[in-house]
Amino acid sequence: MKARIFVTLKNGVLDPQGKAIHHALTGLGFAGVEDVRAGKLIELDLADGTSDQDIEAMCQKLLANTVIENYRIERL
Amino acid sequence: MKARIFVTLKNGVLDPQGKAIHHALTGLGFAGVEDVRAGKLIELDLADGTSDQDIEAMCQKLLANTVIENYRIERL
Repeated sequence: MKARIFVTLKNGVLDPQGKAIHHALTGLGFAGVEDVRAGKLIELDLADGTSDQDIEAMCQKLLANTVIENYRIERL
Repeated sequence: MKARIFVTLKNGVLDPQGKAIHHALTGLGFAGVEDVRAGKLIELDLADGTSDQDIEAMCQKLLANTVIENYRIERL
């Protein structure tokens, strides 16, 4: 069983990586970019019995810093 | 208009970040994790006229290293 975790910075949290990407895109001539936010994508290959609570706990304890980051779980 | 870009390492490319996450999850007692792959998620806020070709070009030129990475575009 696979699961994807999407980790994104909360609104209002400064995102220097996103700013750098934005700046680089503008420098390359892509004028239509208004904002860029960078996040993480973590793909988990899990044993079949793994519960939603387990995945939730992994996010809370390790995968996301819940002070500044949101996460979303997608089971495949 | 928003778009999300998912950048993942190609199969066979070594993923030390994923390995570290896997190791840390095992250390925390999550036994059911078989593999972890780490990737990037880039959220773009784009002007309304931006074409699919423009987004594709951004990925090819900057957002993904197509030698070792795959990317997937999702328009919202």
